[in-house]
Amino acid sequence: MIRVRVPATSANMGSGFDSLGIALTLYNYVSIEKISGPTEIKIMGEGEDFLPGDESNLIYKCVRKVFEKCGKEPGGIRLVMENNIPVTRGLGSSSASIVGGFFAANALLGEPFSKEELLSMAVEIEGHGDNATPAIFGGFCVNVPTKNKINYISSPIKDNLKFATFIPDFFLQTKKSRAALPEKVLHKDAVFNVGRSALLTASIISGKYENIRVAMGDKLHQDYRKRFIPGMSEIFDLCYNNKALGVYLSGAGPTIIGIIDGNDNSFSMKVEAVLNKKMKNWQLTVLSADNEGAVVLGGF
Amino acid sequence: MIRVRVPATSANMGSGFDSLGIALTLYNYVSIEKISGPTEIKIMGEGEDFLPGDESNLIYKCVRKVFEKCGKEPGGIRLVMENNIPVTRGLGSSSASIVGGFFAANALLGEPFSKEELLSMAVEIEGHGDNATPAIFGGFCVNVPTKNKINYISSPIKDNLKFATFIPDFFLQTKKSRAALPEKVLHKDAVFNVGRSALLTASIISGKYENIRVAMGDKLHQDYRKRFIPGMSEIFDLCYNNKALGVYLSGAGPTIIGIIDGNDNSFSMKVEAVLNKKMKNWQLTVLSADNEGAVVLGGF
Repeated sequence: MIRVRVPATSANMGSGFDSLGIALTLYNYVSIEKISGPTEIKIMGEGEDFLPGDESNLIYKCVRKVFEKCGKEPGGIRLVMENNIPVTRGLGSSSASIVGGFFAANALLGEPFSKEELLSMAVEIEGHGDNATPAIFGGFCVNVPTKNKINYISSPIKDNLKFATFIPDFFLQTKKSRAALPEKVLHKDAVFNVGRSALLTASIISGKYENIRVAMGDKLHQDYRKRFIPGMSEIFDLCYNNKALGVYLSGAGPTIIGIIDGNDNSFSMKVEAVLNKKMKNWQLTVLSADNEGAVVLGGF
Repeated sequence: MIRVRVPATSANMGSGFDSLGIALTLYNYVSIEKISGPTEIKIMGEGEDFLPGDESNLIYKCVRKVFEKCGKEPGGIRLVMENNIPVTRGLGSSSASIVGGFFAANALLGEPFSKEELLSMAVEIEGHGDNATPAIFGGFCVNVPTKNKINYISSPIKDNLKFATFIPDFFLQTKKSRAALPEKVLHKDAVFNVGRSALLTASIISGKYENIRVAMGDKLHQDYRKRFIPGMSEIFDLCYNNKALGVYLSGAGPTIIGIIDGNDNSFSMKVEAVLNKKMKNWQLTVLSADNEGAVVLGGF
């Protein structure tokens, strides 16, 4: 049996719409083994009530794709998913599934494909590499798609940053969230984000975190999406009032992430007190950065 | 006597419109000393024929400003400028003058102001920190202005990059070049630059230069300015045909810079052969990055 671990990911970091993402220490696991009988798919944890357990399952389809690219048939396999990443919340659960399926099948076949090739295959399915890039390579990722490839840089995130992850009890479809964006924007608003996404990148890579708050500023997506996410402004304020270095809407939402000083032990306590009192539908989990990306944990 | 050295700077690097800039090893020098007679201003080199030599001189006005901020009068001073940075060509000659005047006066007064304070004063005059930030701090700079300050990160550039600087024999007024930009742009064009400016930043800081060409891509300024710069497309092609890592319009133009591998010794020879044959009005100078920024060379 082969077991693969894939991290949750958070894309669209503030100013870095469609380009900046990170991997987080919240994981889905995919186990795969060949069996003599018909294919078995078992889902545990997040999505176990509604994710399909038949051959329309996304992970199964990704396993098939890898086999087909090698001119093979998977035959009977047992796939077991242990899901900790909540579904449709802006934490890259789809990418984790795709990458998990690819890595599992690739390992089973003796790793015919490189990570770069698996990234290209993920982008073929998702249409972008916002989540797949950090899911595969870990750390802080800049990713720019061009016609023929994903141009990316992955840089490790120091452990003096933590990511306060606020997950609400409601879903938000990426399609709906994306449709809210305007066709045109002011040139100066474009420039606003251009400088900030560069500053955010330089801040995280060089460890000059005092710039993160300004660098997180955004005029391209978050304000347009706010109306779908009741409580968003309150969570932003709550974070900044408790010394967050920066706050942003994760992916297409509704999860919100506050970047905090890794040594700040009082943030959670203070913030949870407020959530318990006024906003019980938001759950806080403080995560670290995952700097490894997807890994094959070995055969058993 | 105090002598100050200030580097040329190149802003608006491709995707990084209004935010990314570098300092280059081409310098203006400002010497200052107190004299008993009336003020004397001497200009040598670039601009000596048309820059004013009286109290309307920009450097003199900057010297005055520093003195006034300290509640003092400069009295009689001798200012000598040795200018190597061409004027109105997109290489930060105005910023070099402002920074040169500030640094000279600040040194004469025993350095009452920090570099950050001098940057703020430069931005008060210029309205932006695109050139002043690298002129003061050197290296590769990301700079984002907010109401109260310039938020910047300066990062040294490794010596395995060189900057092929193409300077034409014509001028381009920044105002005219800026007026050519549209009020609105497509959201997707904004996103195009957002990702690339982040990728360019990560590439230069981390030394992953293979991304520079894609990261230089721009939809916000260069195409709109092309019509003012006859030969621009040809210079871009000439650079890329000779293995440049990236090419961009420096500042508001008309200078064009090709980023090249520091070990590539054939670039200049090949490119100059073409310039001599077809484009005699463009002069090529290969510069390195200046990682020091403005420096006071000491009293004499």
